[in-house]
Amino acid sequence: MSKKGSIDYIFHPRSVAMAGASSNLLSMGGMLLRAFIDCGFKGNIYPLHLKDEELMGLKCYKNVKDIPGPVDYMVVSIPARFTPQLMEDCAAKGVKVATFFAAGFSETGEEEGKRLEAEIARIARRSGMRIIGPNCMGIYCPATGLSFISDLPQQSGPLGFLSQSGGNTMYGIRAAAARGAYFSKAVSYGNACDINESNLLEYFTYDTETKIIAAYIEGVKDGERFFKTLKEATRVKPVIILKGGHTETGAATAASHTGSLASSREVWEAVITQTGAIQVYSIDEMVDAILPFVYMSPPKGRNVGIVGLGGGASVLAADDCASAGLSVPRLPEEIKLKLKKINTEAGNIFNNPVDTQSLIIGVEQFSQTAKTVLNWEGVDILILHVDFELMGAPLAISGEFGREYIKLMIDISKGSSKPVAIVLHSAGLAETSQVILEGQKLCREAKIALFPSFRRAANAISKFIDYHSKREKLRDA
Amino acid sequence: MSKKGSIDYIFHPRSVAMAGASSNLLSMGGMLLRAFIDCGFKGNIYPLHLKDEELMGLKCYKNVKDIPGPVDYMVVSIPARFTPQLMEDCAAKGVKVATFFAAGFSETGEEEGKRLEAEIARIARRSGMRIIGPNCMGIYCPATGLSFISDLPQQSGPLGFLSQSGGNTMYGIRAAAARGAYFSKAVSYGNACDINESNLLEYFTYDTETKIIAAYIEGVKDGERFFKTLKEATRVKPVIILKGGHTETGAATAASHTGSLASSREVWEAVITQTGAIQVYSIDEMVDAILPFVYMSPPKGRNVGIVGLGGGASVLAADDCASAGLSVPRLPEEIKLKLKKINTEAGNIFNNPVDTQSLIIGVEQFSQTAKTVLNWEGVDILILHVDFELMGAPLAISGEFGREYIKLMIDISKGSSKPVAIVLHSAGLAETSQVILEGQKLCREAKIALFPSFRRAANAISKFIDYHSKREKLRDA
Repeated sequence: MSKKGSIDYIFHPRSVAMAGASSNLLSMGGMLLRAFIDCGFKGNIYPLHLKDEELMGLKCYKNVKDIPGPVDYMVVSIPARFTPQLMEDCAAKGVKVATFFAAGFSETGEEEGKRLEAEIARIARRSGMRIIGPNCMGIYCPATGLSFISDLPQQSGPLGFLSQSGGNTMYGIRAAAARGAYFSKAVSYGNACDINESNLLEYFTYDTETKIIAAYIEGVKDGERFFKTLKEATRVKPVIILKGGHTETGAATAASHTGSLASSREVWEAVITQTGAIQVYSIDEMVDAILPFVYMSPPKGRNVGIVGLGGGASVLAADDCASAGLSVPRLPEEIKLKLKKINTEAGNIFNNPVDTQSLIIGVEQFSQTAKTVLNWEGVDILILHVDFELMGAPLAISGEFGREYIKLMIDISKGSSKPVAIVLHSAGLAETSQVILEGQKLCREAKIALFPSFRRAANAISKFIDYHSKREKLRDA
Repeated sequence: MSKKGSIDYIFHPRSVAMAGASSNLLSMGGMLLRAFIDCGFKGNIYPLHLKDEELMGLKCYKNVKDIPGPVDYMVVSIPARFTPQLMEDCAAKGVKVATFFAAGFSETGEEEGKRLEAEIARIARRSGMRIIGPNCMGIYCPATGLSFISDLPQQSGPLGFLSQSGGNTMYGIRAAAARGAYFSKAVSYGNACDINESNLLEYFTYDTETKIIAAYIEGVKDGERFFKTLKEATRVKPVIILKGGHTETGAATAASHTGSLASSREVWEAVITQTGAIQVYSIDEMVDAILPFVYMSPPKGRNVGIVGLGGGASVLAADDCASAGLSVPRLPEEIKLKLKKINTEAGNIFNNPVDTQSLIIGVEQFSQTAKTVLNWEGVDILILHVDFELMGAPLAISGEFGREYIKLMIDISKGSSKPVAIVLHSAGLAETSQVILEGQKLCREAKIALFPSFRRAANAISKFIDYHSKREKLRDA
């Protein structure tokens, strides 16, 4: 068995069958079936149905055993009470892995649900079949066309995602894709009655298609094994973890959601600290933390240069950096003098953060201002920020104006060996949302990290720098 | 002198003059002049100009003293070195208040700037004229048509805002308006060489048009006076404060921005605690904190009911509530049974938070589910949350679908004596931004507090409840 682990085959089925298939796109059975068709799965797709001959143009079978060719992958979307018989049939057919959308198992807290979950796990163990779930969305793997909702991106990328929540999996995939970061594989694994967080973490650790691992975990099946696996994973690549149920209240909800057992906050935080994993508290924060790893080279240090528009925004940007543990070095006189020569109007701030009216007055001035700060040896990373609404609606709603500046920011980033991030603040006016969306598209295409607030940028960048300085310490030790 | 203070007249000038007026809408002189015309100022507007006879259809004067009628309000947008002479002319003319957009004063840190600022302040003191600024945007008062940018709302509301940053003033006004909260007056007061934070705080304390005070403060001129004024203000109405420069790095930037002196973080936090003011760390957080005061009746306690879609989202919602200091009580068996009768599919969570498939399946089921939780005596406040993208693009991008559910949430809120808030999560897809904007508009019109994330909702609601419980303690003491 290669270090990559034995589960790589679950991402490469030759064919899929689906129990509980439906033609109704508003039902899960319809949505899941449609996803295989729309996401370009290359192998055969076999819907199971007791009455219908055909669904979405695909021939139906009454039982998995009736299917003529091999079936590697079974999607289960039928009531829990029917699943043991289905598992027996799958075992007989030689199915390799079953992903259970079906719920109604241990997460109900009821004896019958626990019994059913134990039974399907027992059949799997006996037959060598693997189970993902129950109570999950299963596998998203754009390269092989596995998905669970039609509109997830078909583009692959360097992110691996293991998640105990199907909804959080979808949210994470979409939120990352909106900012240009894509996934090699994502696995929503629910109650984890068979394949669990440690299996997946180990898989992603050695998966050459995965460079960064993200995880949403509600409960851990075997604490000792998880700790060892996580320690090894963080040695190999960055691991960003969101613990669902990190409070007592949240843990009680996690028990109802995936039957997860609570672990104490102290234990969890010790695990994070000792392994060097990156802890986050929301999916948005997870995606923020991912972006620097995808787009940036590691900065040489924590010295941030800040160039943008607005005195108040500059003060708050400095506060956000300091609160996140970043440094904002004062500029030496020679750099201040250079900036004064470029910016001749009143109302600029010639320090770091630089508040420059050139974000209204002229692109050439702005470009020179930003490059002067970026090229100063005291700065390791540059954050450019602007709220186009500051200039009032006539400018804010002019796509042309915003586009020109965003393109310029992207050019500044492309021309530098130091990392550059962009923050587009907005008070959320309907009129400016179009400009922001366009900026998002431009940054996505140019592979630049874009953040919606300075605080989110500072937090993500600080975690990125922390990760690299911890690694250096480990290497030097 | 009434307790309202002597400065009410600054919001009711009979006429305004403007030094540095321009016809160029991309210059400050053009933007400021246009704002008076566009925002419905009723009195005469007199642009000053040495050459032009007319600007934007208004007759120009070379000197304020040449203006035939009285001039109550002078907007100053000329280079700092010319302002002492202008002030002398204003004094001779009997101008009552001058707002200085002009920068280049003490915030430069240079002797000449400090000297000029001291000089204009001296002329003001001698003549009885008042100064707002320098280095600020001045007054926004929709009722009397005072503004500094044409596109700020002309609608008045219960919020008063004093802010040392012009950009943060605009951001705050726009971000609040986008969520349906409007201002009686906002004052961007910059370097505060005359009218300062204590004058404005005192004014808003007794202004009958202001029910809630928001403040962005970089530095305090007289600590003892400010403490007393803030203590009195918080006794009378809620005061939400953002301290710009709450870190050393930020304080250094504040010194360059408005010449503000740093105060230690410990002193500041003691002031907040002892006065009962509400501390926030960004303008977005400020607007979040404002919303419950504008839209909600005070809940009886900290018990939150949560109804929405998604198991993972429910776990994180529970964590967010607990982290913010809110309680999420478990549901009694009778309520769980009621919910089970309404929601008959698998995959729901019948506890608090309630995860209900009815947000996909049917509005009637969802309405009954939400009302069952809302009407339970164990709940003091209800938060409804949904990520329409969870159902996949076909539903997410259907405005009809989202609109129907948002309207239903609004109806549920309107029908209850307990407060209700709505959270519309989104991974930020371009396709769904339209649905979110429409939801924002519906909630704004219906006067419902809408938040973009559960964490932001929980934090704002917790601050709201804290404020009322502190007041009760004070009253009982």
